[in-house]
Amino acid sequence: MVRDMETVCVGNELLIGKISNTNAQWISKRATVLGILVKRITVVPDEVDEIAATIRDSLKRKPQFIVTTGGLGPTFDDKTLQGLARALERKLSINQEALRMVKAKYEEYFRENRIENCELTPPRVKMATLPEGTKPIPNPVGTAPAVLAKTRTSSIISLPGVPREMEAIFEATVAPMLKRATGSNSFHEKSVYADRIMESNIALIIDQVMRDNPRVYIKSHPRGVESKPHLEIHLSIKAPESEKPEENLEKAAKKLALLIKQQGGDVSTTEQPAE
Amino acid sequence: MVRDMETVCVGNELLIGKISNTNAQWISKRATVLGILVKRITVVPDEVDEIAATIRDSLKRKPQFIVTTGGLGPTFDDKTLQGLARALERKLSINQEALRMVKAKYEEYFRENRIENCELTPPRVKMATLPEGTKPIPNPVGTAPAVLAKTRTSSIISLPGVPREMEAIFEATVAPMLKRATGSNSFHEKSVYADRIMESNIALIIDQVMRDNPRVYIKSHPRGVESKPHLEIHLSIKAPESEKPEENLEKAAKKLALLIKQQGGDVSTTEQPAE
Repeated sequence: MVRDMETVCVGNELLIGKISNTNAQWISKRATVLGILVKRITVVPDEVDEIAATIRDSLKRKPQFIVTTGGLGPTFDDKTLQGLARALERKLSINQEALRMVKAKYEEYFRENRIENCELTPPRVKMATLPEGTKPIPNPVGTAPAVLAKTRTSSIISLPGVPREMEAIFEATVAPMLKRATGSNSFHEKSVYADRIMESNIALIIDQVMRDNPRVYIKSHPRGVESKPHLEIHLSIKAPESEKPEENLEKAAKKLALLIKQQGGDVSTTEQPAE
Repeated sequence: MVRDMETVCVGNELLIGKISNTNAQWISKRATVLGILVKRITVVPDEVDEIAATIRDSLKRKPQFIVTTGGLGPTFDDKTLQGLARALERKLSINQEALRMVKAKYEEYFRENRIENCELTPPRVKMATLPEGTKPIPNPVGTAPAVLAKTRTSSIISLPGVPREMEAIFEATVAPMLKRATGSNSFHEKSVYADRIMESNIALIIDQVMRDNPRVYIKSHPRGVESKPHLEIHLSIKAPESEKPEENLEKAAKKLALLIKQQGGDVSTTEQPAE
């Protein structure tokens, strides 16, 4: 059974192009290797309505996992939990377990810096204010806990936007959840590079190889220009180990290479940049 | 009046994390500088249903512009125009103007390489098969034309996924369209860097400065860790030049720096990496 996921990235900085969405790529890569099918990535602004509508739309498609990034911090523009609460039609309230996590982080910091009076100001309490019925997930490197919410069909995991924190929580808590869900399903990929053949000529070859190898997905990526073609042809397969996915992938790659050569193209398995 | 835009990026390679979505960031940055508000980015797989559903959902929100990237090429997995046709409930048919564009590209290539018989094979004709009532946009560097579709509320522009082609068409055709729509609206931004102050302490300062400067949007980005804080505070404004946006931005930045210093923080206007 295919286990699928959608990613929702919250942050105006992504929508003005200030930063590259490295979180989305990192999560896609890790989830794919764990055998998950990532079906959609949505980037939304720091607005409660937009976050809520996007999570609600995602829930309608019933992916097994929804991972959100960003918007968990102490400032006013961190609105993911408000959006999540609205999407789930649940109230926000102080979660005592999350409050203990946040408090412990500040106590440690104030002790190290010999500051007395560790005050849990409203911005700090905000990070422990969760939709009711959700659970905080420990943040090993930062302050804001991540949050796990379950509905009848989906698990929603809200992670911070700071990459170091997001990655640490993902590895500690999310990756094991995904692995449990996918079981022995695994992902394999391989690229074949072709020169002296145009993408428009390779289209029919790919059709044929995919028909003969229905589990293998093949996509061509032009790396040169159509008039001086250098193509990467990417083959991938997601299947249980019992179905020998690597053997299937090799078989498809060999057939592809053969057909390209028959049409006068050059094939290599390492990338040769176009001149 | 705010002119808004949504971006839809088509491609399995983005969803498996094979490549970074540089197109989305590039488009966001260019559109923002031109005064456009980018409200959403969605990444979807090479599947007609998913592409159609995403464009249809986007149309319901009535952004003035929808820009799609990817899926215009000659291979079977290039499905954006099928998705667009389904979303618009229009038939696909060969567009004579697009066919002339595609044919001219191949004739040039075959002439240069002294190949006779420039055949318009089905994969090549596919690139000229457009939803009815849409217009091809010339591609100055590649083969597949871009496509412009208009509905009562939105202009949809489908661009290729190859960055060099996407950028060339954007600059030649899309940027002038966006500029005409935004008029004198422009975007300005500035960053202030703060040390020795925690993000949870800066939250109330940002609230106050934004209340006093309602056109200026301010967001803090932790660059260190909460216990050794190094913060980037990003200020931005989108307004007609007549409202002196740069002056407003400077005023807000000065007030922000003053309040941070009053709380014991250090402020600089150039990035100092945290130790």
